[in-house]
Amino acid sequence: MFEATKVGRSVSKQDYKEQQEELRTQLLEVQRALRYTNIPVIVLVSGVEAAGKGEVVNRLNEWLDTRGVQTFAFWNESDEERERPRYWRFWRAMPPRGEISILFGGWYQTPIEHRFRGQCSDAELDGELNRIVDFERMLVQDGALIVKFWFHMSEADQKARLKELSRDDRSRWKMLPEKSKFSEHYAAFEQVAERVILHTDRGSAPWYLIEAGDRRYRDLTVGKTLLHAIRSRLAEHGASEANGTPTSPKLPESDSAQITLLDQLDLELALPREDYKSELKRLQAELNELAWNAYNKQRSTVLVFEGMDAGGKGGAIRRITQAVDARLYRSIPVAAPTDEEKAHHYLWRFWRHIPRAGLMTIYDRSWYGRVLVERVEGFAGVSEWRRAYSEINRFEEQLVDSGIVLVKFWIQISQDEQLKRFKDREAVPYKRYKITEEDWRNREKWPQYKEAVNEMIVRTSTRHAGWTLVEGNDKPYARIKVLRTVCDALNEALKGPPAPMAGYLPCGDKRIEPAGGKPVKNGGSSG
Amino acid sequence: MFEATKVGRSVSKQDYKEQQEELRTQLLEVQRALRYTNIPVIVLVSGVEAAGKGEVVNRLNEWLDTRGVQTFAFWNESDEERERPRYWRFWRAMPPRGEISILFGGWYQTPIEHRFRGQCSDAELDGELNRIVDFERMLVQDGALIVKFWFHMSEADQKARLKELSRDDRSRWKMLPEKSKFSEHYAAFEQVAERVILHTDRGSAPWYLIEAGDRRYRDLTVGKTLLHAIRSRLAEHGASEANGTPTSPKLPESDSAQITLLDQLDLELALPREDYKSELKRLQAELNELAWNAYNKQRSTVLVFEGMDAGGKGGAIRRITQAVDARLYRSIPVAAPTDEEKAHHYLWRFWRHIPRAGLMTIYDRSWYGRVLVERVEGFAGVSEWRRAYSEINRFEEQLVDSGIVLVKFWIQISQDEQLKRFKDREAVPYKRYKITEEDWRNREKWPQYKEAVNEMIVRTSTRHAGWTLVEGNDKPYARIKVLRTVCDALNEALKGPPAPMAGYLPCGDKRIEPAGGKPVKNGGSSG
Repeated sequence: MFEATKVGRSVSKQDYKEQQEELRTQLLEVQRALRYTNIPVIVLVSGVEAAGKGEVVNRLNEWLDTRGVQTFAFWNESDEERERPRYWRFWRAMPPRGEISILFGGWYQTPIEHRFRGQCSDAELDGELNRIVDFERMLVQDGALIVKFWFHMSEADQKARLKELSRDDRSRWKMLPEKSKFSEHYAAFEQVAERVILHTDRGSAPWYLIEAGDRRYRDLTVGKTLLHAIRSRLAEHGASEANGTPTSPKLPESDSAQITLLDQLDLELALPREDYKSELKRLQAELNELAWNAYNKQRSTVLVFEGMDAGGKGGAIRRITQAVDARLYRSIPVAAPTDEEKAHHYLWRFWRHIPRAGLMTIYDRSWYGRVLVERVEGFAGVSEWRRAYSEINRFEEQLVDSGIVLVKFWIQISQDEQLKRFKDREAVPYKRYKITEEDWRNREKWPQYKEAVNEMIVRTSTRHAGWTLVEGNDKPYARIKVLRTVCDALNEALKGPPAPMAGYLPCGDKRIEPAGGKPVKNGGSSG
Repeated sequence: MFEATKVGRSVSKQDYKEQQEELRTQLLEVQRALRYTNIPVIVLVSGVEAAGKGEVVNRLNEWLDTRGVQTFAFWNESDEERERPRYWRFWRAMPPRGEISILFGGWYQTPIEHRFRGQCSDAELDGELNRIVDFERMLVQDGALIVKFWFHMSEADQKARLKELSRDDRSRWKMLPEKSKFSEHYAAFEQVAERVILHTDRGSAPWYLIEAGDRRYRDLTVGKTLLHAIRSRLAEHGASEANGTPTSPKLPESDSAQITLLDQLDLELALPREDYKSELKRLQAELNELAWNAYNKQRSTVLVFEGMDAGGKGGAIRRITQAVDARLYRSIPVAAPTDEEKAHHYLWRFWRHIPRAGLMTIYDRSWYGRVLVERVEGFAGVSEWRRAYSEINRFEEQLVDSGIVLVKFWIQISQDEQLKRFKDREAVPYKRYKITEEDWRNREKWPQYKEAVNEMIVRTSTRHAGWTLVEGNDKPYARIKVLRTVCDALNEALKGPPAPMAGYLPCGDKRIEPAGGKPVKNGGSSG
């Protein structure tokens, strides 16, 4: 989930100077407009140590009109606070309507600290996180805008940053990794952070993960995100900015000059023809065996294929279905929903095809349509696709908890490669049916799709269900990477104990077996 | 919480016959209108054993047009179901838009069974309930109407009902109390049920608790509740019922002929003057000592007074403040909110006055205004006061978990007694300021207030924060009952270990003390 905060984004001094000026003007404008509304704005500032949370808050105070902003740090409780219910201190910090409160850590600080230090279990943490979700929802229903920032950086960057800090600065933070166990602690903290963020990332109060390695990039991104969040709320609210004053041309929300995870893919990767042939043969044989083995061990598999048009999903899927016995898999091409499907919740059509124990379902496009095509084409409203991230995460958690092996592929190609393939398709008669007017129209929306894909990957790359990004310009390379990933996932899953199929019960593995149980064939090799 | 399902409501054969006919007509009308909307309706039928859930469902099927209704019982899982994630079976049962699914138990059955049989802990149960809340919210956001019925009856009624049933019928249910431990099991089941209902009673998917002792009352109430729920949704949706056909005069939602918890109060209760004087003296002395004792033990107290106008709240509060040292309490009269209070969430003004450790806050009217005057006068929208029940329950849970002694009073008087007091007030010069035009206007809304009060008591009588209903026609009797209740609560609380003040942390009682801790005076008697 934090991969996107480690790509090394930065902003030059010159760019910073130019953008900052514009940003300040616009922030002041929205702040002025905010004052005439009944919207209280709560900004939460959290993240790893040494990410510069204090610097960011100072910057915001510099940029905003301080008359409408208050900042609160929650150091040790005062005796006034200690003697009251824990949330009393947060209620004291609530902004009145039309104003902004910036909270360091806020209600997230204690739960994260406690879990990190082992003072509470995951289950206790989850309980607290649920209270937080309820609490935030209550505020949002009352009209509040909640903007939650999480600052993150790579292990190396954090180490370097810590070195810069004086001893004094460091002693304040209780979650500072010990030097000797830095890596271990870094990873443990990340794990807690992911749990907290995933659990509390709701459409109505989303987290924004900010790469904190470069100070200029960090501050500008925070400013723009806040600007955009307030502006969207004002728009919903029907408030015109700046009350009559002409507004400046709007700053775009995302910075198209910045690299993303997708840009980091080396699309030049290729596989020589001979290697492809031999690898394909070997991996298909392995997959065939693994699929039977999974059947015998009653482990189900769900494969999800998403990717740019003409990215090669179909070809990759065919290399899988060639290998697996036809009785063991089902391939579901996802196109426009049927009438019956439209009459249900959007997840219903995917639940229908969840495989029985031991079988495999391959989704050629999937529930991610909600946050891709439906978002870009406007088939789903903003609040619909925004809340879909957590709906999807919970859905996938159910699949994985029930013992299903879930593998998700995003196949990426370059714009040039897509153009080449579109033209090829038009030239070859038997491929012509694969290319339509719509494909060309979609192609024009490449930047919007890119933004949607990036956000999708950031918000739905979870520990239990990560994305495999596939470099797709070279088809042989892509197909082999897909096959190998599936084989690895199955190998890993089948090593373990037999199918749990019980995780999603309140009583964990105490699920009661049906009388007699189910006989399990133990044929096949254990590959 | 279940008191309201044990008051012995019933419907005569004649009334049933008349009302049933009207109800059926109207149910068919709304069902027809429903078909043209995109609203799927999910009806969940749960409750104690032998409450007649099957009979109710049969009745609904008889009343409704079966072409738009499907019924699902979730007996043992089929092998098809067992081999998939647990919720797959529920997704199969989802109604398409415009139709109705009636689910026996639904997603509540397994968690309740498991907790009752001790196969999971409270924390595990809560985790599952949170998943349920998320799941239901997702469906509601997609347009679904969820109507959840819980059938309940007194221990005696259940015992009698079970006797009627043949051995066969009984063996299906896994939570049947053993004969020898009936009372114990009845209480244990009630405790699980309360936890489940409180946790999952949200404004968007509320529970309806139905008294199931009398079959005719039960079935009619279910029918009317369902009718009203669908009708409200259609109204929001702007759909006209029955598509042009003139609709019959609407059946009222609540049955004013039915007795409620408030009607069960014996308002004739009175206390002779001499007894009052001696009791008052004794209890005030006791309370004085208890308040000091609470101070020394750092236990805080919150008293909430609500009641009909002229019910005698002020007089009862004065008998308390006379007894308690002025340094130890604060009395907060709650009237219209200030500008500053209006600029915040409605709970903010109450959080402000939460007492420090060892002190007492007396709220003369309280946060319950949201579901009383604000509801009746329309100051809060329907969705606002509907979701306030669970907001309030969670707020009070925080108070109690932090160690606060919370006592809530509803002082009830008869309509005649109120009239007498209003007239008295007008007659006595120094009392005249207490009576305004508004009081007379409120009086005209007695039935609406009665309905609001009843729903408030049912939905916010929790194990951790129950209501004390006070028979208020005789002031001496009411004042003594209030004083005694406060003394009892403090005695009970001060018996225990010192103030926990830690319950609301994720790590439970592992809260870290500030260095040195706080010295606690141990003066005063231990009452």
